[in-house]
Formats: sequence, structure tokens, C-alpha cells
Amino acid sequence: MDPKIAADTIWTLFTAMLVFFMNAGFGCLETGFARQKNAVNILSKNFIVFAISSVAFWWVGWGLMFGNGTPFAGAEGLWMLGGADNSPATGDAYQGAYSAIGWTGVPLLAKFFFQLVFAGTAATIVSGAVAERIKYLAFILFSFLLVAFIYPVTGHWIWGGGWLASRGMWDFAGSTVVHSVGGWAALAGALWLGPRFGKYRKDGTISPIPGHNLGLATIGCFILWLGWFGFNPGSTMAADPGAIAHICVTTNSAAAAGILGATLYSWLRLGKPDLGMTLNGCLAGLVAITAPCAFVSVGSALLIGLVAGFLVVEAVIRFDRIRVDDPVGAISVHLVNGIWGTLALGLFAQEAITPGTTGNGLFFGGGTGLLTAQAIGVASVGAFVFLAASIFWLILKATVGIRVSLQEEIEGLDIGEHGNSAYPDFVTRRTLPVLVESSSAGAAQPATR
Amino acid sequence: MDPKIAADTIWTLFTAMLVFFMNAGFGCLETGFARQKNAVNILSKNFIVFAISSVAFWWVGWGLMFGNGTPFAGAEGLWMLGGADNSPATGDAYQGAYSAIGWTGVPLLAKFFFQLVFAGTAATIVSGAVAERIKYLAFILFSFLLVAFIYPVTGHWIWGGGWLASRGMWDFAGSTVVHSVGGWAALAGALWLGPRFGKYRKDGTISPIPGHNLGLATIGCFILWLGWFGFNPGSTMAADPGAIAHICVTTNSAAAAGILGATLYSWLRLGKPDLGMTLNGCLAGLVAITAPCAFVSVGSALLIGLVAGFLVVEAVIRFDRIRVDDPVGAISVHLVNGIWGTLALGLFAQEAITPGTTGNGLFFGGGTGLLTAQAIGVASVGAFVFLAASIFWLILKATVGIRVSLQEEIEGLDIGEHGNSAYPDFVTRRTLPVLVESSSAGAAQPATR
Amino acid sequence: MDPKIAADTIWTLFTAMLVFFMNAGFGCLETGFARQKNAVNILSKNFIVFAISSVAFWWVGWGLMFGNGTPFAGAEGLWMLGGADNSPATGDAYQGAYSAIGWTGVPLLAKFFFQLVFAGTAATIVSGAVAERIKYLAFILFSFLLVAFIYPVTGHWIWGGGWLASRGMWDFAGSTVVHSVGGWAALAGALWLGPRFGKYRKDGTISPIPGHNLGLATIGCFILWLGWFGFNPGSTMAADPGAIAHICVTTNSAAAAGILGATLYSWLRLGKPDLGMTLNGCLAGLVAITAPCAFVSVGSALLIGLVAGFLVVEAVIRFDRIRVDDPVGAISVHLVNGIWGTLALGLFAQEAITPGTTGNGLFFGGGTGLLTAQAIGVASVGAFVFLAASIFWLILKATVGIRVSLQEEIEGLDIGEHGNSAYPDFVTRRTLPVLVESSSAGAAQPATR
Repeated sequence: MDPKIAADTIWTLFTAMLVFFMNAGFGCLETGFARQKNAVNILSKNFIVFAISSVAFWWVGWGLMFGNGTPFAGAEGLWMLGGADNSPATGDAYQGAYSAIGWTGVPLLAKFFFQLVFAGTAATIVSGAVAERIKYLAFILFSFLLVAFIYPVTGHWIWGGGWLASRGMWDFAGSTVVHSVGGWAALAGALWLGPRFGKYRKDGTISPIPGHNLGLATIGCFILWLGWFGFNPGSTMAADPGAIAHICVTTNSAAAAGILGATLYSWLRLGKPDLGMTLNGCLAGLVAITAPCAFVSVGSALLIGLVAGFLVVEAVIRFDRIRVDDPVGAISVHLVNGIWGTLALGLFAQEAITPGTTGNGLFFGGGTGLLTAQAIGVASVGAFVFLAASIFWLILKATVGIRVSLQEEIEGLDIGEHGNSAYPDFVTRRTLPVLVESSSAGAAQPATR
Repeated sequence: MDPKIAADTIWTLFTAMLVFFMNAGFGCLETGFARQKNAVNILSKNFIVFAISSVAFWWVGWGLMFGNGTPFAGAEGLWMLGGADNSPATGDAYQGAYSAIGWTGVPLLAKFFFQLVFAGTAATIVSGAVAERIKYLAFILFSFLLVAFIYPVTGHWIWGGGWLASRGMWDFAGSTVVHSVGGWAALAGALWLGPRFGKYRKDGTISPIPGHNLGLATIGCFILWLGWFGFNPGSTMAADPGAIAHICVTTNSAAAAGILGATLYSWLRLGKPDLGMTLNGCLAGLVAITAPCAFVSVGSALLIGLVAGFLVVEAVIRFDRIRVDDPVGAISVHLVNGIWGTLALGLFAQEAITPGTTGNGLFFGGGTGLLTAQAIGVASVGAFVFLAASIFWLILKATVGIRVSLQEEIEGLDIGEHGNSAYPDFVTRRTLPVLVESSSAGAAQPATR
Repeated sequence: MDPKIAADTIWTLFTAMLVFFMNAGFGCLETGFARQKNAVNILSKNFIVFAISSVAFWWVGWGLMFGNGTPFAGAEGLWMLGGADNSPATGDAYQGAYSAIGWTGVPLLAKFFFQLVFAGTAATIVSGAVAERIKYLAFILFSFLLVAFIYPVTGHWIWGGGWLASRGMWDFAGSTVVHSVGGWAALAGALWLGPRFGKYRKDGTISPIPGHNLGLATIGCFILWLGWFGFNPGSTMAADPGAIAHICVTTNSAAAAGILGATLYSWLRLGKPDLGMTLNGCLAGLVAITAPCAFVSVGSALLIGLVAGFLVVEAVIRFDRIRVDDPVGAISVHLVNGIWGTLALGLFAQEAITPGTTGNGLFFGGGTGLLTAQAIGVASVGAFVFLAASIFWLILKATVGIRVSLQEEIEGLDIGEHGNSAYPDFVTRRTLPVLVESSSAGAAQPATR
């Protein structure tokens, strides 16, 4: 056995597992940021979404993304991983259907697993923005469509040897490929669904709807931070010591700076250091460093993260002002900072850090060429994903329906969609009046609780 | 240093840590599925059980399981890892007491650590089925006996070079060795303890007792899913690139299919997609793929998981009907699907996937030989474990007692067994009447809460 | 590429990520052990602290700790990782500013990342002891000062080639370097802040203040236990199969024995097996084995952990008696057992386990030399850290202030410091009287909750 392939495979699978675990992180974060009456629904969405993604990406997503084909989509080995393995690990079977990902020698199923967890991340981003009002079935179907058809197409453009790759766009670990794709789909969903009942009042005021469990949200964000050490350093798909160590540190530095930036800015702008902003600042820094992590210095990473921290606070406030209701700030985190990170690569990239790849960005004497390529990528991916997602959302709206009834929304999706309650033993502000009345009426509490 | 041994040891220890972390997963899942008044007790059981397992497996469990001995139990190097290390890593000390596990070259303590976390899993499975009524001390003692004596004996039969291995039974990562062993012991415990007070009423109706924290349960299930990427791919105990990548994907595919199967089936059968069923569907798929993960295709894994998802929903309903009270569905998950997965290996195994091991199963032209060997393994392990566990439960019943008093059960085991309350700052349905009364009576709330 | 460097780098980064994740563990543990009215504040502190540490350690901490310099502090390559990389991985650039850490061949940024997560751990230890009364800003500033200046100085003495290393003191993974440093700083903080309001009454009685979420605390402790498999085995900073397997098992054995010791002792001493004591027993065992994990046998590890379990229970009770208010027991865990573990190395070390390092400890015929060196290390680090920390605490007290107002403390730091509430949808014992009154007064509950 070639020890390099063993080390590369360990690294690829290990980091893929970390990225897989980000599903738990998103689940905790989104549930914590929403109300308790919708907790089961959000947990269910975030739990089932990776199962949906696993089937969709295996069925056709992988083939569309990495199959040899046109500059716009894959075609060879399209269905169910049907192409021959092109990895050195398989010896004689080297020539294959997925040559765009032939640069790493790990086995085909290791490549698939790593790419699957990325596809799953894109789907789970949508979940937060459409929370507390979307029908469970509509979310399941949209996730399938996103992972089977939308995500792999733009992914092919950039990572599958498509036209944006040829055009000189770089996105190391997916600020655009994953995060802004998820973000655009989330924006489309939030717009077609409309805001939650009671969020924006007729008198023009905005009603804050705080999350119900900030402990859960914070655990979630820690898990996501951990997961990003898989997301970015794992995107080498090889145990290249210098690269993976470098990417660990740029990734962490951007997260740290995003935290400090968002905390400081919310402290100044809102009067107090809001925990939700601190958490989203972390994610903003991480999203932003995802594209450039391998190509920029630690100092640049700190700057990129700091800007991301400011951006996310400002974006959350501004999206609220234009009445785009995003319960968890997913659009501000993933779309806004996915764009920022992709552009930042065009500003901060340094030839010396990863020779023979991006060349220098604008701030390091490389001119505007790289930045332009990045901007074209941002715009074209945005246009395609927003359009395609909107079409799917509208088809779903016209068929199964995408929004629960007003009554169900008011009473909570947990009972309405699932027949479950997340915390049946606890007294909530909703249940208190009823319970107090039945209590003073002498009704016995159930002995088994 | 041989780079292969370094890579193998990294892989073995890394995956062992993931399996270790399944203790947290089981702890969260079981606690979330139970009532808040018993939360401290369940957390305590799930926390201490791995400490107990660590001592029991070190003391004699390892030696009984892997020591050279008879077809029925190990004998050499029996106590406290006392045999010489037989790993190549130790050079001259190669020949040793544990030849059944000599196929992997990692150091003895890496083998021990990996096998220890498996033994711990078997013990923790019991915890859920006996929850909300078992004495803390009885659980501690039973766990010790299970890990010291029962688990290693049947483990020896299959993984320690014993009679079932000779008979041609295969169980790659422990659908039988770990999960159905835990499941049989759990079933024995649930039967000897009897159902929780108030669960099955005299008029024949069944009172549902919903879990108190589905957020905790969902985190737990995510952790378990993650942990299974250690459980199954780690059971190679070697960084074999093709095998570990294959097993990652079959494992994940079965989990995904189990989720979809259980969700769909509960949607159809119960009217709504119950989150508890979705979570247990995931675990069911994972348990079922544990035995065959290395020997079956991705397509077969999807089928095996799908069936597991149906099975677990049906089993949960049926065990309830025959009044076997299993608060978290542990028996339906681990026993039923441990059996299913072990038999599925006999149906879906393909010689071409792991040449020189199982040969073909029934569905791939291999005839019934393999299936028969699997069935004999299932039956003989079941008979031994159920009998041995029952003997230990009865001894404990006759000595320290296994069930708390009815009053303690009604009031909750947290105060009764531990003197703790899991959520003292929150108002629960139990405490509300008392608190409202004392509040209206003008009693001041404690200023420090 | 040299496969050894690839394997070593994978191991170092992987274990560093586990240690990073300990931040989540400390966050959950401390939040769960405190009251719900301060949950947001504790989560915020534990979340931002690693961002602060990341900047502080990058800025100057690393250079002070590992830069070539005097026996008392580093000087070369002091600022912002400015020294040349001295790792073999960088080929020609071998000779460098950080020769004390030249024994491992992983890239400079891998060394930095690994050491950064250790520095972050020291800072987060303080968080628990000062919880529920410290100003957010004061905690942020103190953390910065600790990681930039205090931690690296004593770290230099032991791990940076300083005077204690020359004096023959050993501390494999940081019982002293990390844990007792954090513990001394925590003790200074707890003393200068004074106890929480209502904890120690004028009549001499002690008011227990139970934690508000033992589920969260238990998850936290599981995460910490997992993290220690990074902390200790990772401190090899190399994938040395024999060593990392050995350290995994000694680490786990001490944790198990700590759990059993603390549970048993609290059962005997307090009448019931308190979950908080069980959790702290685990951490106590882990802290104690941190220094000697590579140098002692599995049997010795069990003994060291067992003693740690007793020690932590006794210490928690005694610190309470002398009115040192440490809400989570951080001082009993990290300081008391950091000292115990460092001394235990002088008692239990065996030349045969790691030849050419510590030699034999007192119990294995090595005389008192090693024990004396360990004791000198404990005392001198304690004196320096306690003094330096006190100076910083006093400067902060005189400038920004370190303690919130009494009113804010009573009402909770969540609203006072952050304007957030951790569980706004739930009825707590604090909010019940107000809510019941407004409910009976006919005030409508907000429809959106």
C-alpha cells in the first residue's frame, strides 16, 4: 500500500466526518435561534436533510458535478456513481468518468463521501432561512431538488472543470460553491414564503423574535467552528502537511476576527454585545475565509474575518429593514459573506503562499484580473441559483404548497407537522395560562410526568 | 517507524475516540427520550457506565474475549492485559497471548482501547431499556458483570477465534457482537424490571410517555451517527483506503435509508412524521449495516437501511402492544436490527467486494450456507446472553434489588437516587401547582435563582 | 513527501481540533453548573475566550513561550510568529527562532495551532471560577493578558527550554503548564472578586446554588473527556504508535478511576452519588494524569485517577468552607489536581515506559530527586502566576472594574451584560410570579411565542 494514499484517505475521511457533523451544528444553531413551539420541526428538518442529500447526491448530483461533460454540467458516469473509479488507488482502473477530481488519489468513494457532506451543507443552509413557517414536505422536496440539480450544476462550473474554472475563478473550499449557493436558495425561499406572522407589524415596527435556547445555539456554533477545520483543511483532499497546517490557522484566525468584529460592532451599534451576533460573527468569518483560506496569509485572514464580522451585523439589521425574514441570519452569514470571501480572494491572494494557483490578488500587486474573475463567478452563480431555486419554490408552491396555515404557524409547527412537543414537561409562556387555570380548577397533574 | 503502522494506529485510535463519544450520544438520546424528573439519573448512568466498562474490560473482559483459549472463552493473558503484546509494533515481543487479534499490527493498547469502546457500547445499550425505574447501584453492578463476563464470551465466539467464527459466521463490526448482545441484555432487564408505573393501564390502554427534551435527543442521535463512522470504518483497525472509504459510504447510506424508511412509514402508519421514529430509524439503519458494511454494495446498503427503518417503527409499536416497556426503543433498535443486519449479511454479501471473506450471500448466488451460519450465530448468542443476563438480573434482584420504590419512581429518580434536580430553575408541569400556590401565598422566590 | 511528517501532521492537527472542541465542553459544563439567569453571559465568555486567545497567542504569546531567549522568557521571533520556521518540513529553512519545539518535524503552523489550543484551555479554566459576577469586559481583558503574558512565561520555563526544564521538571501534557496555571489565575480571580451574593450567609451557613441544566453540564464533560484524547496523546506531536496508544489508555483509565473515586466518595460522604461530583471526578482524573500520562503504567494511572476523584470532592467541600466561591469547582479540578498530577509524576514514573526521559519516580526506586524537581516547579509556577494574575486583576479592578453591580448580579448578567435571555420561551422560578400575575390580570401572552 502506498503510504501517501493511506494518509490522504485518512485525512479526507476524517475531515469529511467533521463536515458531516456540521449537520448537528446547524441543527442546534437553528433550533436554538427559533421558538420552542417550532423546535421539533427544525430538528426534524436538519436531521432528515442529510438523508435526503445522501440519496440525491448519490443518485445524480455527483455525476452532474464531477462527471466529464460540457462546461455547464457533467454527463459521463451520471447516475448512481456509475462511472469507473479514476483514482490511483484502484490501480488499473485509473481512467475514469470523473477526471475533474482526478487530482487526488484517494478512492472514489472517499471523494464521493467528502463531496457529499459539502452538498449536504448547502442544503442545510436553506433550512434556517425558511424556518418556522415552511411545510415539512416542501422542505424535503426542495432539498432533494437543490442537491440533485442546482448545487451540482454551479459546482461543475467551478470544481467540475466547467466554464468558471476555465475563466480563472478560484474557490478553495466553497465560499461560493457551497455557501452562497445555499444562501441564494435560502434568499429565494425566504422571499417566496414571506415573513413569519407577527414579525413585521402594520405600523412599520419590527418585532424581535428571540431564539428560545441560546445554550443549544452556542453548542451548535462550536460544532460548526470545529466542522470548518474539516471543511477548509480537508479540501486539500490530501495530507499535505504545509497546506493543511496553514489552512487550519487561517481558518481559525478568520473565525476569531469575525467573533471580535461582530461583538465589537454590535456592542457599539446596539449598545450591548449580543450573543447571537457573536455567534453569527464567527460563522461569517468562517464563510468568508472558505474561498481564500489556502491562498492568503494569517494576517490577511484576520482582516477578512474582521470585515466579515462587521458585515454580518450590518446585513442582519438591513435585511430586517427590507423585511426579508430570516430567523437565524443564514442569508447574512452564508450569502453576504460567501460573496465577500470570494471577492476577498481576489484582493488578498498571494502567489508565494500557494505557488502556481491564483497568482497575486489586487492588494498584492496582481491587478484586477483575479478579482474580475471572482466577481463574474459570484454574479453568474447568483443569477443561476436564484432563478433555478425560485422556479423550484414556485412549482412546489403550486403543487404541495410551501407554507403552513396561519393557525398552525401560530400554534407551532411541532404539533401541526409532527404531532410532537419538544419540551412537554416544561411550562412555557404559551402553556402557562392554560395550565394555571386547570391547576386552580383542581385538575390533577398527570402522575407520570 | 513503519509508516503503515503509524497510519493504522492513527486510524484505530481516531475511530476509537469517535466510538467513545457515542457514550455522549447515548446519554443525550436516552435522557431526551425520558422525563425530566429522571434526567439526572439517566445522565449519571450513561456517564458512569464507561468508567465501569473501562475497569471491567481491563480487569478480565479483554482476556476472556481475545485470549487464546477454548472455542468458548479466552484463557491466556486473562487478567489485566497480562499477556505479551503480539503486535509487530513491539518487534521481538511478537508472539503473544491474543493471537485472534494478531491480524492488525497496531500496538496492543490500541487494540485494547478500540475493543474497550465497543464493549462500552454494549453496556450503554442496556441503559435506555431499563430507564426510569432501575436502581443506580443495580445498573452499575449489571454493567460490570455484562462487560466483564457476558459480552466477552459471545465476543470470543465470533471475534476471538471461537466456535461461531469456525462455523463461518461473519459480523464485521458487531451487529450481533455488540448490538444484539446489548439488546438481549436490555430485553432481559426490561422484562425482569417490568414496565414503568402508569405506562400500561388496567383498562388495556397504553399511555404514551413522551420524552422531555427532543433537542437533546436529536443531538444525541447526530453524535451516534458520527460515532458510527468510527464504529464501522474503524473496525478495519487499519487504514486500508479502499475498505474504509467503502464502509463510510455503506454506513451512511444505510443511515439515510433508515431515516427515510422510518419517517415515511411513521407518516403513513401514525399520520405524521414522528421525530422519535426518524431518530430511531437512523439508528436502526446503522445497527443493521454494522455486520455487513464491508461486504455489501452501496445499493444493498440502501435496501438494508430502508428495511431497518420500517422494522424499527413496527417493532416499537409491537413491543408496546405486548407490554415490554422500553422507554427509548433500545430493543427495537439494537436487538431487532442487530438480528436483521446479521441475517442481511447472509443475503447481500458479495464476494467481489471483499474477496476471500464471506463469499456471496443468498441474493448473489451464494446459496443458503452463509445465511444459515448467520442464523445459528444469532440464535446461539441470543440464547446465551438472554439466559446469562437473566441470571445476573435475578441475582441482583435478590440481593441489592433492581427497582426503586413506587414512591421514588413517581417522584423521580433524580431526587431519590442522586439528590439532584436537572433543571432546578425551570417551572415544570410537576412543580407548577406547588409553586403557584406558594407564589400566591406570598412566599418570596429565592433571590439567588 | 516524507510519510512520517504527513502522519505526524495529521495526528497533531487532529488532536488539536479535539482540544479546540474542549472550548465547547467548558462552555456547556460551566453554563450547566450555573444559574439560567447567567447562562448567556457564561456562553458568551466561553465562546469569545478562544477568539481572544487566538489573537493574544499569535500576537506575542507564542514568541514568549517558544522563542529562543533567556531561561525566563522567549525573545527571538517574538511578535506575530515572525521567526523562521524550524521544521524539517520546510527543508532549507530548518534553523529557526523556536528551537525548544524543534523536536517535532511538523510545520510551524501546526505547532502553533496545537499550542494555541492549549493556551486557550488555560484561559477558559478561569471562566468558571469567576462566573456569575464578573464583568464581561474584565473577563475579556484578563483572558488577553493571561494568554499573551502569564501563560507563555511559565510555559517557557517548562516547555520552552527554560529554567524548570533545566532543573529536571517534567510535565508531559500540562498538569502544571496548562491546568494549574489556569487554576492559580482562577483562584486569584475568585478571591479578588469575592463570593456571589447570597452564597455565604451572615449566620455562617452556606447556601448551595445548584446548576440549572445538568444535561448541558454532562454533555460538556463528555466533550472534555473526548478532548483529553487530543490533549494528552496529541502532546507527542508525532504519530508514535506505541506512545499514543499507551497515553490513550492511561488517560482513559485515570478518568474512569476519577469518576469511580468521586462517585463512591460523594456517596459515602454526602449520602448520595451527586452527578456534579461524578463529572468533576472525571475531570480531576484527567487533569491529574495530564503530566504523567506518558511515563506511568495503566495500573498507576488508575491509582492516580482514584486519588484525584477523592481529592476533588474533598477540595470542593473545603474551598466552600473557607468561603472561596467557585461556582463550577474549577479550582478543585484544575489547581488541586494539576498539583497532584505533577507530583504524582514524581511518584509513579517508570524509566522502562519512556526510556531516557523522567527516570524512575519515588515509588519505583528513583528516590526523591524527580519529586523535588516537580515540587519546585509546582511552587514556583504557583507563586508567579498567582502574583501576576493578582496584579492584572487589581489593575482591571482599578480601571474598568471587575464586578457587576449587586442589582445586575441579582437580576442576572444575561440582561445586564448582553441584553439577551437564554430561554425566553420558558417559565422560570424567577419569572413565574410576574407571569402568573399578568396572566390572571388578563394580559394576553404574545401570540408569536
